[in-house]
Amino acid sequence: MDYNLNNDNIEYLKFYGKTMIKIGLCGLGTVGKSFFDHLNVHKKRIASNIDQDFKLLAIADRSIEKKINNKDFILTKNPIEVAENPDIDIVVELIGDIDTSLELVTKSIKNNKQIITANKALIAKHGDEIFSQAKQNDVFIGFEASVAGAIPIIQTILKNFSNEKITSIVGIINGTSNFILDQMTNSNCEFSLALKEAQKLGYAEADPSFDINGQDAAHKISILSALAFKIKSPLDKTHIEGIEKITPMDIKYASELGYIIKHVGITEFINNSVVSRVHPVLVSNKDIFSNTPNVMNSIIVEGDRFGKTMLYGHGAGGDATASAVVADLISAINHKSNVDTSFSQMVHSSVIQDYEIMDIDDVVSQYYMRIFADDKPGVMAEITNKLAEQKISIEAVTQHEPDNNNSPIPIVMITDRVKGEHIRSAIKNIEAMPHIREKVYSIRILKNE
Amino acid sequence: MDYNLNNDNIEYLKFYGKTMIKIGLCGLGTVGKSFFDHLNVHKKRIASNIDQDFKLLAIADRSIEKKINNKDFILTKNPIEVAENPDIDIVVELIGDIDTSLELVTKSIKNNKQIITANKALIAKHGDEIFSQAKQNDVFIGFEASVAGAIPIIQTILKNFSNEKITSIVGIINGTSNFILDQMTNSNCEFSLALKEAQKLGYAEADPSFDINGQDAAHKISILSALAFKIKSPLDKTHIEGIEKITPMDIKYASELGYIIKHVGITEFINNSVVSRVHPVLVSNKDIFSNTPNVMNSIIVEGDRFGKTMLYGHGAGGDATASAVVADLISAINHKSNVDTSFSQMVHSSVIQDYEIMDIDDVVSQYYMRIFADDKPGVMAEITNKLAEQKISIEAVTQHEPDNNNSPIPIVMITDRVKGEHIRSAIKNIEAMPHIREKVYSIRILKNE
Repeated sequence: MDYNLNNDNIEYLKFYGKTMIKIGLCGLGTVGKSFFDHLNVHKKRIASNIDQDFKLLAIADRSIEKKINNKDFILTKNPIEVAENPDIDIVVELIGDIDTSLELVTKSIKNNKQIITANKALIAKHGDEIFSQAKQNDVFIGFEASVAGAIPIIQTILKNFSNEKITSIVGIINGTSNFILDQMTNSNCEFSLALKEAQKLGYAEADPSFDINGQDAAHKISILSALAFKIKSPLDKTHIEGIEKITPMDIKYASELGYIIKHVGITEFINNSVVSRVHPVLVSNKDIFSNTPNVMNSIIVEGDRFGKTMLYGHGAGGDATASAVVADLISAINHKSNVDTSFSQMVHSSVIQDYEIMDIDDVVSQYYMRIFADDKPGVMAEITNKLAEQKISIEAVTQHEPDNNNSPIPIVMITDRVKGEHIRSAIKNIEAMPHIREKVYSIRILKNE
Repeated sequence: MDYNLNNDNIEYLKFYGKTMIKIGLCGLGTVGKSFFDHLNVHKKRIASNIDQDFKLLAIADRSIEKKINNKDFILTKNPIEVAENPDIDIVVELIGDIDTSLELVTKSIKNNKQIITANKALIAKHGDEIFSQAKQNDVFIGFEASVAGAIPIIQTILKNFSNEKITSIVGIINGTSNFILDQMTNSNCEFSLALKEAQKLGYAEADPSFDINGQDAAHKISILSALAFKIKSPLDKTHIEGIEKITPMDIKYASELGYIIKHVGITEFINNSVVSRVHPVLVSNKDIFSNTPNVMNSIIVEGDRFGKTMLYGHGAGGDATASAVVADLISAINHKSNVDTSFSQMVHSSVIQDYEIMDIDDVVSQYYMRIFADDKPGVMAEITNKLAEQKISIEAVTQHEPDNNNSPIPIVMITDRVKGEHIRSAIKNIEAMPHIREKVYSIRILKNE
């Protein structure tokens, strides 16, 4: 592992009235490693969002000696040492295990350290006491990464939608379950086979029970429920069903009726009470959830003023989760230095870059082209020649029936990827042909995958 | 119009060390009225997110005398009076017209007022100078509502994703165009007819040119481009095409090839330069954008660490847009009082509610049921009797072929909406029947529409 932050120029910091914020990272697993890399790769971008400087001072991991050997850091097997190190300002808890992380977080708060955690079980089970301790000590708790990785759902609920009445939250919030159901649907295979595939790809753990029995989703929906409705965590009263009982037969029968099967967490405000539940559902194959494939997550929040808003993205994985941890890190640093972290401050602090704006002629796309031509021999050959002159390959051509005998023939083509200027030249040349009627109309093709 | 805020209890404020933040609202059109209502309806929720108290002090609108007659407010036809009123702390600019709003915003910044605006043309054209003036005066500029209404895209780019490299943003960001294309696709109708329908429903203005020629989308993508890539607004160099040339024929031919047509804004970072463009595109009918119907908006942001994240919701409309304005209002108030607006502070300040957690037996759903029964006469009648006993109606039944002669017959039912306890009782009774094999499996049906 490499690390090349060298920002310890104390004179520079003093000159600008900055202090050095010192971070302790506990847990060097998948997310911990991604967090470490993210700090390294995007040091400058992070710095442009804060008024202070920062460095990673200590790293704790129970197998630390196997993972890193770098004397720039204090390295330890014991995370509690990080909580008790008076130099550390911010503790990043990425251990996962509940008992250790609860002790770490509790001691860190007592020692007035800011906390960032990705631990959903910790927040769902002990969030009430942690927030209460944090309030007493005026300590920031960042937990954006605890629900749905890089999807900014916590911030959205607390900042954007906290000023109105949230009525429901429904989410595909367990990537493993979603992947398994997606596999069973697309490959018509048994649950056990789909699970094996998920394990092979690293989407399910050796013991996958927490993901497939709904416990993981229950932790997440409990956190969202507590935030949306300002209640204590409803985890103990959450109805939990997993996906183990779903058979390929169910998926097939559901499909015949126009449905697909998804696993969701739901929390709603009904008749002055709150529902919190996790179970499989049938949704229409035209439903917005039907386009949440693979390990992706989707969360729909409904409010009395903004209507329905959906957030979709990578709900797990090291880099996506670490991205949310870093976003929290910036908030924690700004909290500590009592800087307003509102976005206009970020606009102000933005370095204005001087990138070239690319001309549309230089942009490469596939194109749909619609051409009206007379029904004469050789016209099609001439069109394809004009395209070949610009080195444009054709992926598909369809010639349609004219409206009547005198009408021109509509020809539709899908091109391969080509520069804007080449398609423009080709179209100009095609329009100049004798048997072409009207203007050629072209539309770019967009691939979001 | 009614207004019942009566929070002028000065003694109370003094006691708690709070100050009264005074707001000036300029523009009482659709969004202005929704903002007014939102303050009224959700006064308490807003107050729970700030450390100060607030009141609406002045309202400006060129037809003010026709719209409101309430002596609790300073009412004026001239918004510049609001900018020059020394009592006003925050100016909410919802006028729309560029010249007036630019003068209003510039004068307000000079007078050290915080600004909130929903004006995309203003920010796309004059954002660079406005942000620069705001920085000099340490004034907050909130403009979340300027792009995609209630979708928290500005905040997400600036707060969650500013610490890494954003590589592209692609969005369906003009609801009017999306509605027209959706109509043309579903009803196979001409552009002009779809436009008339949009106008009838209030989704297009009498002069719809800014929406359908791509100008509106160009303003929005320019704002997002500037924020994502830290550049000056690329509006002047943005390639702009609208949807006017798309025919039902194009939609039909695209559909035959597996595509639908959408209108998008795109900004990308390619070869150290930035692209900014607005035009129609073909996307696969399985693409995530294919589920953005009607006037809805979707925006996909891609970054080097978090991957792809999509935000979907109401991109326009009074209530959705005003919701974003109110979110900014909270940030502006907290900026003014130099309070950290990070979300942990909001967790701390949350009032803990004591709502009942509803039992899953009380939750009402439609159900999918899969039953294995022997192939005997009367079994189906008996099953439906057991359902009828619990007052459960059946929406659909399908009986499937058994695997072989000895296998039980799979029966699949979709019920109408029913309480959890009733379906549970019915299933218990069905499982007790002589010719039923295995457990009955039930899955709830979810409708996101």
